[in-house]
Amino acid sequence: MRIHLVNPNTTRSMTEKIAAAARAVAAPGTEIVEATSTMGPASIEGHYDDALALPGLLAAIAQAEASGVDAHIIACFDDTGLDAARSLARAPVVGIGEAGYHFASLIAHRFTVVTTLSRSIPVIEANLLRSGLERRCARVRASEVAVLELEDPASDARARISEEIGRAVREDRAEAIVLGCAGMADLARALGETHGVPVIDGVASAVALAEGLVRVGLATSKSGAYAPPRAKAYSGRMADFAPTGG
Amino acid sequence: MRIHLVNPNTTRSMTEKIAAAARAVAAPGTEIVEATSTMGPASIEGHYDDALALPGLLAAIAQAEASGVDAHIIACFDDTGLDAARSLARAPVVGIGEAGYHFASLIAHRFTVVTTLSRSIPVIEANLLRSGLERRCARVRASEVAVLELEDPASDARARISEEIGRAVREDRAEAIVLGCAGMADLARALGETHGVPVIDGVASAVALAEGLVRVGLATSKSGAYAPPRAKAYSGRMADFAPTGG
Amino acid sequence: MRIHLVNPNTTRSMTEKIAAAARAVAAPGTEIVEATSTMGPASIEGHYDDALALPGLLAAIAQAEASGVDAHIIACFDDTGLDAARSLARAPVVGIGEAGYHFASLIAHRFTVVTTLSRSIPVIEANLLRSGLERRCARVRASEVAVLELEDPASDARARISEEIGRAVREDRAEAIVLGCAGMADLARALGETHGVPVIDGVASAVALAEGLVRVGLATSKSGAYAPPRAKAYSGRMADFAPTGG
Amino acid sequence: MRIHLVNPNTTRSMTEKIAAAARAVAAPGTEIVEATSTMGPASIEGHYDDALALPGLLAAIAQAEASGVDAHIIACFDDTGLDAARSLARAPVVGIGEAGYHFASLIAHRFTVVTTLSRSIPVIEANLLRSGLERRCARVRASEVAVLELEDPASDARARISEEIGRAVREDRAEAIVLGCAGMADLARALGETHGVPVIDGVASAVALAEGLVRVGLATSKSGAYAPPRAKAYSGRMADFAPTGG
Amino acid sequence: MRIHLVNPNTTRSMTEKIAAAARAVAAPGTEIVEATSTMGPASIEGHYDDALALPGLLAAIAQAEASGVDAHIIACFDDTGLDAARSLARAPVVGIGEAGYHFASLIAHRFTVVTTLSRSIPVIEANLLRSGLERRCARVRASEVAVLELEDPASDARARISEEIGRAVREDRAEAIVLGCAGMADLARALGETHGVPVIDGVASAVALAEGLVRVGLATSKSGAYAPPRAKAYSGRMADFAPTGG
Amino acid sequence: MRIHLVNPNTTRSMTEKIAAAARAVAAPGTEIVEATSTMGPASIEGHYDDALALPGLLAAIAQAEASGVDAHIIACFDDTGLDAARSLARAPVVGIGEAGYHFASLIAHRFTVVTTLSRSIPVIEANLLRSGLERRCARVRASEVAVLELEDPASDARARISEEIGRAVREDRAEAIVLGCAGMADLARALGETHGVPVIDGVASAVALAEGLVRVGLATSKSGAYAPPRAKAYSGRMADFAPTGG
Repeated sequence: MRIHLVNPNTTRSMTEKIAAAARAVAAPGTEIVEATSTMGPASIEGHYDDALALPGLLAAIAQAEASGVDAHIIACFDDTGLDAARSLARAPVVGIGEAGYHFASLIAHRFTVVTTLSRSIPVIEANLLRSGLERRCARVRASEVAVLELEDPASDARARISEEIGRAVREDRAEAIVLGCAGMADLARALGETHGVPVIDGVASAVALAEGLVRVGLATSKSGAYAPPRAKAYSGRMADFAPTGG
Repeated sequence: MRIHLVNPNTTRSMTEKIAAAARAVAAPGTEIVEATSTMGPASIEGHYDDALALPGLLAAIAQAEASGVDAHIIACFDDTGLDAARSLARAPVVGIGEAGYHFASLIAHRFTVVTTLSRSIPVIEANLLRSGLERRCARVRASEVAVLELEDPASDARARISEEIGRAVREDRAEAIVLGCAGMADLARALGETHGVPVIDGVASAVALAEGLVRVGLATSKSGAYAPPRAKAYSGRMADFAPTGG
Repeated sequence: MRIHLVNPNTTRSMTEKIAAAARAVAAPGTEIVEATSTMGPASIEGHYDDALALPGLLAAIAQAEASGVDAHIIACFDDTGLDAARSLARAPVVGIGEAGYHFASLIAHRFTVVTTLSRSIPVIEANLLRSGLERRCARVRASEVAVLELEDPASDARARISEEIGRAVREDRAEAIVLGCAGMADLARALGETHGVPVIDGVASAVALAEGLVRVGLATSKSGAYAPPRAKAYSGRMADFAPTGG
Repeated sequence: MRIHLVNPNTTRSMTEKIAAAARAVAAPGTEIVEATSTMGPASIEGHYDDALALPGLLAAIAQAEASGVDAHIIACFDDTGLDAARSLARAPVVGIGEAGYHFASLIAHRFTVVTTLSRSIPVIEANLLRSGLERRCARVRASEVAVLELEDPASDARARISEEIGRAVREDRAEAIVLGCAGMADLARALGETHGVPVIDGVASAVALAEGLVRVGLATSKSGAYAPPRAKAYSGRMADFAPTGG
Repeated sequence: MRIHLVNPNTTRSMTEKIAAAARAVAAPGTEIVEATSTMGPASIEGHYDDALALPGLLAAIAQAEASGVDAHIIACFDDTGLDAARSLARAPVVGIGEAGYHFASLIAHRFTVVTTLSRSIPVIEANLLRSGLERRCARVRASEVAVLELEDPASDARARISEEIGRAVREDRAEAIVLGCAGMADLARALGETHGVPVIDGVASAVALAEGLVRVGLATSKSGAYAPPRAKAYSGRMADFAPTGG
Repeated sequence: MRIHLVNPNTTRSMTEKIAAAARAVAAPGTEIVEATSTMGPASIEGHYDDALALPGLLAAIAQAEASGVDAHIIACFDDTGLDAARSLARAPVVGIGEAGYHFASLIAHRFTVVTTLSRSIPVIEANLLRSGLERRCARVRASEVAVLELEDPASDARARISEEIGRAVREDRAEAIVLGCAGMADLARALGETHGVPVIDGVASAVALAEGLVRVGLATSKSGAYAPPRAKAYSGRMADFAPTGG
């Protein structure tokens, strides 16, 4: 099974870290084919970055579809472009944010998301609402750690994330924690041991869900919300994205 | 007052029609400055078109901001890029879909949206949920009229839309109708007279709301969800969209 | 355009202040015709006052309708009698509470209401639920300033309201504030500058929304919830309110 | 135990019928003290009638409080003035609409309300939302029988109500029916036998709930939403309603 | 009228205390017939105990039905087995948790539940959601008093419960308190006097609601959710529970 | 990896069919260890059967835990005993109903459940609400095929299920179907091909989710809702279920 894991930001080092996290949990026989967006923001923090990451993301999805993959994972916790990718792809698509929410709902009555910056909170709240799992989430918290700080070994990022998890357990009665950034994938296990509650990494969750959908033989419904794009002209810099309706 | 009305698809004839509808309701002293996206899809029908319309939309917003405008209107019923535009702009931003829902909520207990194709229904349902007004909407209905058909005088588009409105009044107990496409702006008044309930055009509603916000002195909050994009590198085809944090 | 602004309490000084706030934002050509209720409570604080303000409010609406107006504004943050006024009037009706919620929803992901006394909180919560925008409101807070204190220049009312706004920004992550009393209309701009988030006055918002509805040609749907009252006998002190069904 | 049952419309024959229904289910030792509003509409059909029934209702509540009663029942299915009455009274207050919803929720997973005219549907929907039980209600249906028709033995009102109940059972999977008008109190038992599902009369339900609250020693909380009205001046025709804060 | 009150745990002393509380509020002519489960846990604290209390509960319900009773009360705040009991019984069934929520909703805009251990919070939250009244409940709080501690006169259980009620009034703006354990039935009145808000005991509430349903002639709908069990084979230790479909 | 699949009803032939469906999708290296309940109902249709299946289910869970398994699957679409099993087990537990809802939410905007008898609809609706995914489900439909009919090759069960799926696609705009009974596991693929939308079998979904949780290293949180049962006495027929708190 080939799973395409696309980092919708352009920071290759983050892709490598995420792909390693994915490979660490992938089943024997699963090949993780990673890709880094070639156009757009170096990190995704808020709605503007999100919007301009979409062409790069969709280009990567299209390229992977052409090369033949069994599933796609969008490796940004904001689930950037999830709906558009589902419309485009023949293979199923899983976002790491949504993956975290679904897995948390299977092992806890109530979970908290601990993300990077405050500005991501509204994006995540909107995604929880879209997924339907907002009632299962006690609260979305920010550790005020910037995405690229997670790449810096000298930062105290891990300690600040751990403190926020502590508050979630004490103040929110959170029974599980979802880590709200792909760049935190390597921290989940240790933080879980520290705090005595499951700490869920969306990347690992997404690999498991994508493998599961493929094994069960399920792909995105092409009736309704995710019908293939209609053939039509696209112009200017986006011309080569024009759907052919094929 | 200068209001920037941007059509996020690249079909100039539709921009002209929408701008005319906007000018027909604008207050004396309001200048409508229209723009047509220069890159992306010729019409927006579903999530994929939506995603790839964003760069063109945001480029138009940035250009209008630079030239000095008091408010922006996004003239696509899907409210394409509303959150990203709010992050980018200093001036307030109103989407024509959201404008329709808010005005409908002020004059009816319960309204129905009548849009173009079925594939737009899930997008609109998601937007209603995001706006918080989903409980006020009885149903989102499709007339199965394609966006570009609205430009074709020979089509029976208007009759099919009228029939769907009739069903909304009879079956949904809809007290008002929101027309679910910018291209329907010229039909509202006549359809309202035919069916005896208010028929709301999002374009006109958005002009009124944008004028209102400006007159009252309100603009998008820059604290939280719509904080300005952080300065960072963007690469590839999107490089010139990089925010400078200025 | 003539907009009828009715203060449903009987305190004329408050009407003057509110009408001044309305005129300050009204478009050129808009005439604000104010009225003060001639029967009922001197201020509206809680459900009992609310109920007994209705005859005075509806009498003023009927009188203004007879004299010819284009829209009505109910100038009490509790949106006293909004549904009944919509049934009675031919012209559209906007409540200042609802106006504040709708405008806040257009410029912020999440807002907080700061009102007068705690006893108003449940009324406002019920109104938010009715409007459908309760999910957009982080919290309704009371500054414990009584309505008539706002008329007393010697009181520290403004400082207490400002402190509560500070708490809303810090504790609720409120991106905008809606001031929860018509008597606070003159404070919005200064408080917004102090706290760095939009502070929304319902009176100004209602003027803008009423002007907008009129310009767009929309009035309350007369099908369903707001159908005109059926002709029937009314007795006793209320006899002259009997609808004639005309 | 003395229970004050107030008909907020001025039609004395309806009061008699409702009081008889109440007495038929009252426990031994319960005295039903009925009152008919002395000012306001002859029947309550929609928001305008509702608003103008409030002074008559509250006058009756005040008078009964003065004479000493243990509980109040508001005998209109719209739960006219429920919040205001709770603020005014020392004794607990039960609305017959709310009573029906609560009892239905105790004996069925899902119920339908069958009311008189379509125009009452939005009022009832709003009340269900306020009570919190809207998710338990499959649908609010109108039989298009006017309130005063129920008083006319020659009308086919009963047959039309029965047909609507049949549709509720077949189409809504309603497991119980709440009759949506005080004037239908005498029909419940026979309709339940016809349709094989419980048919709930709000009047009987309210008597049982009022008796229950009294026996258990519970009355409306005076902290928060239903705090007693503050002493203040009322003017004009409403002057004698001024609360003394006593 | 004979009301069967079943304690679904096996602690007879608790049954006695609950039955005494029930008798204290029962109407003249109501006979409380108590039963203690003869198989299962000594107290119910969490989902596992809940599940294994069901056979004992249902055996008691069946036995009481055979002996002829007019209603059943399930005397555990978790409303253990409420749905199954409603399917089995011909007489109406009331849970003491649900009874508390319904009565609280009739006398307060917003209530808080104060229960025993934290582990009961999710069970109660799930029950509030099922009842539909979750929006009326500000918060479910735990006093960290174990069920059997309530039987120990030397414990400081009462003081800890009282402190938690104080926090509910101050921090949640709770207008009423529902005591979240059958074993707290004797504390309600005194705690209400201490805190100045109604403190509601589910046992008393359930007696009142059961009496009310019986007097009004209502029993569980047998159409839909609570249809009688179909006749079928049961095996092993559960064989004698097999429904005969009679 | 060893996955314990427990059929909470006592019909061994159904267990075999379900286990075969599970093995058909299990990853290489996954061992499916099936168990059939040894006490309780032969099939689970409604709340009463559900309740009395719990001891048999929990006995099987305990036995499997003792023998060492990596995850449990509860193979009844009602998710019988899911919460209690999560409290009891150290290994993660997945219900086939919930598994179906989660997988449907990953591949469709909106799904419909097609189950056996009408009486299961309320149980499934309650489970959807508990899972938080009720907004994603358009409707729960019954094919009126009894569970044991699915075992009878001569019945027209499959045709009736297929007809109901057709109605779901046409009338509900369902983009995917979840088959609402473990006994339908063998029909999913063919029905999906017939109707052109994904048809989801909960058994296969649960296997995939259980494998995923195990591979990712996640198990049920033991903090909060699913804390291990406290040690206490159980009596009578249930005595041997007493938790030791170990």
